[in-house]
Amino acid sequence: MPYTYEYARAALAVDCVVFGLDDEDLKVMLIERGQPPFKGRWALPGGFVRLDETLFEAARRELEEETGLKRVFLEQLYTFGDVKRDPRERVVSVAYYALCNLRDHKVQGATDASAAAWFGLHDLPSLAFDHDEILRTAVERIRGKVRYVPIGFELLPRKFTLTQLQKMYEKILDRQLDKRNFRKKVLGMGILEETDEVQQDVAHRAARLYRFDELAYKRLVKQGFNFEL
Amino acid sequence: MPYTYEYARAALAVDCVVFGLDDEDLKVMLIERGQPPFKGRWALPGGFVRLDETLFEAARRELEEETGLKRVFLEQLYTFGDVKRDPRERVVSVAYYALCNLRDHKVQGATDASAAAWFGLHDLPSLAFDHDEILRTAVERIRGKVRYVPIGFELLPRKFTLTQLQKMYEKILDRQLDKRNFRKKVLGMGILEETDEVQQDVAHRAARLYRFDELAYKRLVKQGFNFEL
Repeated sequence: MPYTYEYARAALAVDCVVFGLDDEDLKVMLIERGQPPFKGRWALPGGFVRLDETLFEAARRELEEETGLKRVFLEQLYTFGDVKRDPRERVVSVAYYALCNLRDHKVQGATDASAAAWFGLHDLPSLAFDHDEILRTAVERIRGKVRYVPIGFELLPRKFTLTQLQKMYEKILDRQLDKRNFRKKVLGMGILEETDEVQQDVAHRAARLYRFDELAYKRLVKQGFNFEL
Repeated sequence: MPYTYEYARAALAVDCVVFGLDDEDLKVMLIERGQPPFKGRWALPGGFVRLDETLFEAARRELEEETGLKRVFLEQLYTFGDVKRDPRERVVSVAYYALCNLRDHKVQGATDASAAAWFGLHDLPSLAFDHDEILRTAVERIRGKVRYVPIGFELLPRKFTLTQLQKMYEKILDRQLDKRNFRKKVLGMGILEETDEVQQDVAHRAARLYRFDELAYKRLVKQGFNFEL
């Protein structure tokens, strides 16, 4: 059933940059393209927007279809509209980025993606389309944002040690932080709740577990508090 | 000459939130719609993206066609894709925001906009489409961004007094700043160059003029400097 318009129209797509964290590196989810163009190359998960869904719904649907990921933190990143970014025809892509705790989210390839896998940010293949640029934009965004908004907690288990928290920031910011200053700063903000639990199954002395207190954070923001790391 | 596609396609538009500053208020540029839908209502300048231009080029072109504004600082804001945001059909809009010095930029209505005018942020009409939401998003963005990136200088004349600079920040942030702290902070950053000129045509004691030193700023950023107000 063909659709006819008075003026030529671009196709509209969404692409998702999904970040996950493990002990080694900040990782990003890629899918191996099963179809041309760029067949066999790695790319960001994504696809075309349907007329009856919002951009956010399209991003969520494509992410689940291509990688099996559900219920992750998903936020709009930027819209990429270079005239020749897709060799087939004009395709404008609204990019989203997602943060998730790698251990909680199993990944699977599905639909037109022949495989899905996590890649370390320091060990990336060259991507299809302009996806290298989209990924670079997403990394810059979380690097900038993580210092002013407590989004990074999405990458951690619900309860975490201060060492895990510090390592997360170090991996995102790609630099070392001073342990004493870091602890003083994050504990001083009043947005971490100390639990009565400690780490399990560790050889060394078990560290205290904390959780992010979102209610306290929202209350503080209303009082003019600015998260700043 | 009609264009036919296998799947239904959304139309793609750009909309621009243009901020200008005068002595009274932070202002935004609106156009009165000359055509349905929302004929006679105020709206953001904007229009449809052509297939042979990037999103940025479309925003720049529409801005010039509808308001006469050229060579302003223009940056992508967010893409709005609610299914029913336009009563005619599915239209996805990539919004941009612009900052300009109100005194340097004359405004004119043109093409399908019957009139263009500046409105104070504290004295806005209800806008067509979802433009109230787009405008709100833009205000939040500049409020957040102005503290971490020296974008605000685009709103001032090339040479300005420290009082003008402080008033600009106060209008954007919508709160008073302490004069002594503010001056200490902005002068301490090393990104303002003191000129050998003073204000002209003022009744009171003429204040020193400064200009934003972009080269110094870029050099500092490379050394790890973070602008923070």
